[in-house]
Amino acid sequence: MADDYYRVTLPESEIPTQWYNVIPDLPEPPPPPLHPGTLEPAGPDDLAPLFPMGLIMQEVTGDSYVDIPGAVIDVLRLWRPSPLMRARRLEQALDTPAKIFYKYEGVSPAGSHKPNTAVPQAYYNHAEGITKLTTETGAGQWGSALAFACAQYGIECEVWQVAASYRQKPYRKTMMEVWGATVHPSPSNVTDYGRSLLAEDPDHPGSLGIAISEAISMAAANPNVRYALGSVLNHVLLHQTIIGEEALRQLAMVGETPDVLVGCTGGGSNFGGLALPFLREKLAGRMSPVIRCVEPAACPTLTRGVYRYDFGDTARTTPLLKMHTLGHGFIPEPIHAGGLRYHGMSPLVSHIHELGLTEAVAIDQSECFAAGLQFARTEGIVPAPEPTHAIAATVREALACKQSGQSKTILTALCGHGHLDLASYEAYIAGSIADFDLSDEALAKSIQAVPVLT
Amino acid sequence: MADDYYRVTLPESEIPTQWYNVIPDLPEPPPPPLHPGTLEPAGPDDLAPLFPMGLIMQEVTGDSYVDIPGAVIDVLRLWRPSPLMRARRLEQALDTPAKIFYKYEGVSPAGSHKPNTAVPQAYYNHAEGITKLTTETGAGQWGSALAFACAQYGIECEVWQVAASYRQKPYRKTMMEVWGATVHPSPSNVTDYGRSLLAEDPDHPGSLGIAISEAISMAAANPNVRYALGSVLNHVLLHQTIIGEEALRQLAMVGETPDVLVGCTGGGSNFGGLALPFLREKLAGRMSPVIRCVEPAACPTLTRGVYRYDFGDTARTTPLLKMHTLGHGFIPEPIHAGGLRYHGMSPLVSHIHELGLTEAVAIDQSECFAAGLQFARTEGIVPAPEPTHAIAATVREALACKQSGQSKTILTALCGHGHLDLASYEAYIAGSIADFDLSDEALAKSIQAVPVLT
Repeated sequence: MADDYYRVTLPESEIPTQWYNVIPDLPEPPPPPLHPGTLEPAGPDDLAPLFPMGLIMQEVTGDSYVDIPGAVIDVLRLWRPSPLMRARRLEQALDTPAKIFYKYEGVSPAGSHKPNTAVPQAYYNHAEGITKLTTETGAGQWGSALAFACAQYGIECEVWQVAASYRQKPYRKTMMEVWGATVHPSPSNVTDYGRSLLAEDPDHPGSLGIAISEAISMAAANPNVRYALGSVLNHVLLHQTIIGEEALRQLAMVGETPDVLVGCTGGGSNFGGLALPFLREKLAGRMSPVIRCVEPAACPTLTRGVYRYDFGDTARTTPLLKMHTLGHGFIPEPIHAGGLRYHGMSPLVSHIHELGLTEAVAIDQSECFAAGLQFARTEGIVPAPEPTHAIAATVREALACKQSGQSKTILTALCGHGHLDLASYEAYIAGSIADFDLSDEALAKSIQAVPVLT
Repeated sequence: MADDYYRVTLPESEIPTQWYNVIPDLPEPPPPPLHPGTLEPAGPDDLAPLFPMGLIMQEVTGDSYVDIPGAVIDVLRLWRPSPLMRARRLEQALDTPAKIFYKYEGVSPAGSHKPNTAVPQAYYNHAEGITKLTTETGAGQWGSALAFACAQYGIECEVWQVAASYRQKPYRKTMMEVWGATVHPSPSNVTDYGRSLLAEDPDHPGSLGIAISEAISMAAANPNVRYALGSVLNHVLLHQTIIGEEALRQLAMVGETPDVLVGCTGGGSNFGGLALPFLREKLAGRMSPVIRCVEPAACPTLTRGVYRYDFGDTARTTPLLKMHTLGHGFIPEPIHAGGLRYHGMSPLVSHIHELGLTEAVAIDQSECFAAGLQFARTEGIVPAPEPTHAIAATVREALACKQSGQSKTILTALCGHGHLDLASYEAYIAGSIADFDLSDEALAKSIQAVPVLT
């Protein structure tokens, strides 16, 4: 390939045909989820009311690779392989000797990496005769991805969207409806839990944890309905590894290996998707990148949370997950990166972090928006607020290279575009973006609610 | 290539390096623009206050091919070559023996085909020392494309956006500001013409013709400022031929030639960009596609307009252009496809149509939205309201194939995504999209204002 490339494209024929499971390659496996009643490891049968067996077996598999069904690949091919970009204009603007690459997932119909797992989740449910999926969504990236995926297999999709987002960003709801989904603001009047919260506060703003509780309750109550989760769980990260597998091949095409890999972390699926195939290479000694998680300072799960068993939802209905958590009742300040406002972290990403295989840093949103604006003006793409965190950390690294004179190769994940987040940029341009100082006291209080298992 | 492809991708190295000018290949050249005072053909000097000489020479060139500067290709490579898609899921839903292909331009940073010409326009202006470009925009696709392009070359961008759109779709304005542009609602209080209209009606909704007049007046008054137009002119269509040149190569990769080619027409740049390279092949006898223009029934320039010399703007300041026109004072009903609400048509597309080389059809917007929704649910991509017209005509053709049993190959242009047009889909889903019956009387009255040259 010529040396002046901007975009590294893989032909459709080279789309990966297997997902990668890092667990067998780790020095020790992550702690299992626990049944909240018995505190015994939760087995496949415990998960069966919520997920189809095809996905449950992926959740617990010991295989290093899982074949991607042809019918799933046929949908992914609507936008995959996604491009790997060399950010030459950003490099120039930063006057850095570093080489910056970004893997761009905004080319998917829903505009983020989320359809990579929404499609196989819809596929496996459909294959087992499920006729409807329920889910929660915050800003709406996950809900719209699942709505798109369900439309592909002709199954219904019912979404509980955090009420504050439902009101502030109405177009994500419309996008879900374009794909045929039904959308409720959460708390809603269609579940007992929602009704109880609305009785206390008719204008309840909702939270991701509450929306999860509502979506789960509807799935658990109906035999032909299951629940779908857009992050956190092993099978979700498994599906997202297609990002990193493609990026590995694309970097090889231009003769590069990353010195630093940077991804933003909310529930961990975007970060894991990019990083886990590179972690395999690192564990095998074939490359040695620093792998860095970036989280919002207002929701600092990895940098300030505790590593303990906690619930995934507010109503305490999920299995207990060993993860970095700020407490299942933690309500993050209303930062614009809605996809990073989750109290917990993927147990797999948490475990890898505890093993010392990754670094983590928390960044204020004002620094992130500044980096996002610079990115838009140089690389053209308007990033979603979530990946501006990864961009901000990338800019920090590139400027450090300028100081040190090192020509590092940096790889980051641009997990989605910001076409439906322009209200956030409007606020930033108007100077009305605030940063939030999370006090030690508030954090300690929230963490007190986390169960202590002995 | 395997026979089950969905997406036909060209490697970055095969991006076209020349634009195609169809004029030398036509049986006769299109009539020249006329100076509105002398009614003599307008020469390069007449255009110099508005455009840089690099673009003027492209406007009047007799060469069949024009080299694309390397610095322009380097920006286009941020998203080009764009994908050619086989719409297998749509074919299946329609149960048609036709093969449907669409060339997707929504992968550009601004989300449409417009940056294909915005980038070279900014480049040639910058190369001649111009420090600011002015333009008009309706729904905002063109204004955001030019804002992006100006950011790439470090020149200022000032946009007059039709006031009704400015108020209804605030996020396009924010997108332009993200790329550093200044945006005014039109009519504005920064031009004499704008102030005169606001004095009559402080809530004036504006129109494209008015916004053009304002942008032109600001450019003409300042020596370092020029004006940029997003459609209509020869050099704009020239730049857009990169679409058709790529599509030709991509179809050849899968061994297909189109029987029918379909594009929506507003000012003609998207249609011309796709169609002109195929027209070359048709004129040379190498293929024989039917080439079909699709326009909104509410703004039926080709199907119900007159082919006469008319002004391009409302204030009658442009050269006279021989084109299909509904009259320069025509204000189309407020259909959602803002990019198709222009009273005139590219003189080149008009001329080709008069030569009998193309067909034209007008379709109501309700049929277009129905087709757009079906497209989104099958192919995943949410189309902008403009290309839903092309999709509706494609669906008609595919259903005709089902009737006749013919397996035609249909190629259409999906010129942009609808991420910033979701309010229109919301209205459609809510059942509040109206069609507009343009009466013969209203049309005749508007056409009366078109000058009659003898």
